[in-house]
Amino acid sequence: MLPEHVTYMNMALDLARKGEGLTTPNPMVGALLVRDAQVVGQGFHQKSGEDHAEIIALKEAGEKSRGATLYITLEPCCHVGKTGPCTEAIWKAGVRKVVVGMLDPNELVNGKGIRELRRLGVEVETGVLEKECQDLNEFFTFWIKHQTPFVMLKVASTLDGKIATFKGESQWITSEESRNVVQSLRNKVDAIIVGIGTVMTDNPQLLIENKNRPNPLRIIVDSKLKISPRAKVLKVDERTPTMVVTTRKSTQKKMKALERKGVRVVVVPDKRGRVSIVSLLKLLGKEGVLSVLVEGGAELNASFLREKLAHKMYNFIAPRILGDDALGAFADMGLGDLDQAIKIKNTRVQSIGKDFLIQGYF
Amino acid sequence: MLPEHVTYMNMALDLARKGEGLTTPNPMVGALLVRDAQVVGQGFHQKSGEDHAEIIALKEAGEKSRGATLYITLEPCCHVGKTGPCTEAIWKAGVRKVVVGMLDPNELVNGKGIRELRRLGVEVETGVLEKECQDLNEFFTFWIKHQTPFVMLKVASTLDGKIATFKGESQWITSEESRNVVQSLRNKVDAIIVGIGTVMTDNPQLLIENKNRPNPLRIIVDSKLKISPRAKVLKVDERTPTMVVTTRKSTQKKMKALERKGVRVVVVPDKRGRVSIVSLLKLLGKEGVLSVLVEGGAELNASFLREKLAHKMYNFIAPRILGDDALGAFADMGLGDLDQAIKIKNTRVQSIGKDFLIQGYF
Repeated sequence: MLPEHVTYMNMALDLARKGEGLTTPNPMVGALLVRDAQVVGQGFHQKSGEDHAEIIALKEAGEKSRGATLYITLEPCCHVGKTGPCTEAIWKAGVRKVVVGMLDPNELVNGKGIRELRRLGVEVETGVLEKECQDLNEFFTFWIKHQTPFVMLKVASTLDGKIATFKGESQWITSEESRNVVQSLRNKVDAIIVGIGTVMTDNPQLLIENKNRPNPLRIIVDSKLKISPRAKVLKVDERTPTMVVTTRKSTQKKMKALERKGVRVVVVPDKRGRVSIVSLLKLLGKEGVLSVLVEGGAELNASFLREKLAHKMYNFIAPRILGDDALGAFADMGLGDLDQAIKIKNTRVQSIGKDFLIQGYF
Repeated sequence: MLPEHVTYMNMALDLARKGEGLTTPNPMVGALLVRDAQVVGQGFHQKSGEDHAEIIALKEAGEKSRGATLYITLEPCCHVGKTGPCTEAIWKAGVRKVVVGMLDPNELVNGKGIRELRRLGVEVETGVLEKECQDLNEFFTFWIKHQTPFVMLKVASTLDGKIATFKGESQWITSEESRNVVQSLRNKVDAIIVGIGTVMTDNPQLLIENKNRPNPLRIIVDSKLKISPRAKVLKVDERTPTMVVTTRKSTQKKMKALERKGVRVVVVPDKRGRVSIVSLLKLLGKEGVLSVLVEGGAELNASFLREKLAHKMYNFIAPRILGDDALGAFADMGLGDLDQAIKIKNTRVQSIGKDFLIQGYF
């Protein structure tokens, strides 16, 4: 692989990341036009319905697109969606060569964009920093494939796996540095899910500090509508959509009261009296929610693991010990044999202030 | 600091480490004699009562000691112990200069060795790789200061802090690579302590694979002598001393039965019906046990923490989750407020195969 390909694709990746948290249900895409070793145009996809990254770059470059090389993190589209096919625009602009990071996992494209470019006589090279491009859009790729969101669990625990003392004190087990990383996770996702237990004990707001994007959708799983009308998470405004998910066991009266506050109440089928997580995820997938961050508590964490519905884990670990009468991060899971233990793969660890962050995939 | 000082002191440290697990109740010491940029003698302390490191190095160098520089990890002794004072031997051999890593924490020496050398006209430089030399002998330094052993806890747990399934299965939670590191820990210590619960559920042997040194003293804390006569840990031989620690609640008959197997039975005062850990550690310290590795279970781990009797922690973490019905690494500790949580300082993390090892000090 040419070293300049890596350099320019990394620049395109940096551009793509500017769309973090904004592009749903589209992927993040970055594009860079280079002619005679000079960047003549750049662009990133900013919002569904608006110009694709390559179109923005082409517009910026204008006449300089002629004979240039286009670096793009994701295969250009060849279908007419909300915008015209990009392949045609690239060819019309006189781009000589296109260097692609990853194929579009969307079946409507998936290699067709590349074939179309070649048919039009544009040279195409693929697979440049493919892994990095895939990682960037792991939510999108998962959602395209499964039509349900990519689910991440966030746990902030002691070294012995506890998320609160036996009295329920949990703020704060981990350090400010760790909580800042949690903010950056919230910035990436379309929705945050918590269980009613967490709302009752911690009374969280589940907001992001970044004012340049709307807050992720806040979802409270509350099978019997036990939520207090004074819960902080029920302070809803335009930037802060909130959904309470419940079952048919809840009364219409309670639902109406929540709706009057601007909360969207959704009734899903129950599984042994509790919200069916599968049903919830299908609903979210249908509505274009690509990613969710599950922020506890122990019951909800265990439900996601028991039903094998979580895909990635972020465990912040504070160097403290609380003992077994404290509250564990995962409720009872009934795993009697070691080979039934939930495994985490491709793990890595890093220091975050005094804490550690272990992450990996289920 | 001269770069050659660092180089030679590192070589002396490597020599000292050859005595690991052998020198108790003495410290590990390494010595290197250098003349005209050539190593003319080297030595390490091998066993209490045998030659000190510097004496071995001087013997090896013979006449070449004259005018040489002695690099030594620990201040030479100036008192007549089991061997003669080393300061005198150094001076007599005509050593020109002594470079010292750390002072001897033993009050009988502690700077006096250096003063004596200077009085004799030998040049002395101190504090070269002092931290490394201190770390090497942290057990010795602690024991000299407190007259009780340095206590390390070893925990092998899942990411959620569990050491066995609810059915009691615990072999093996962590990987072979982690268990190899545990072997290297056992190689360093004078004794291994386990609770009777661990003996009953895991039936461990608590041996080391290294045949060049005796096994660490195996200590089973068994307040009411519940141990089965068939427990593997009761297979005693000359290389494998074993001690069962109990209270007055145990019957003479049971004690005698153990003693017939070659087990040493020790009765210590009880604390609410259980073996007083403080009393046990005082006894061990008196007998020249510098270091112990506590290898569980949950009750014993919690006892050491509750009474603030543990000094260092090694937590091997397997990337697995078992849920809260599994057995936690520490029994109930009654810590209701977060600021009561047991803190671990100076932590560091490393990958061990698929596992992680977090270590630190209490």
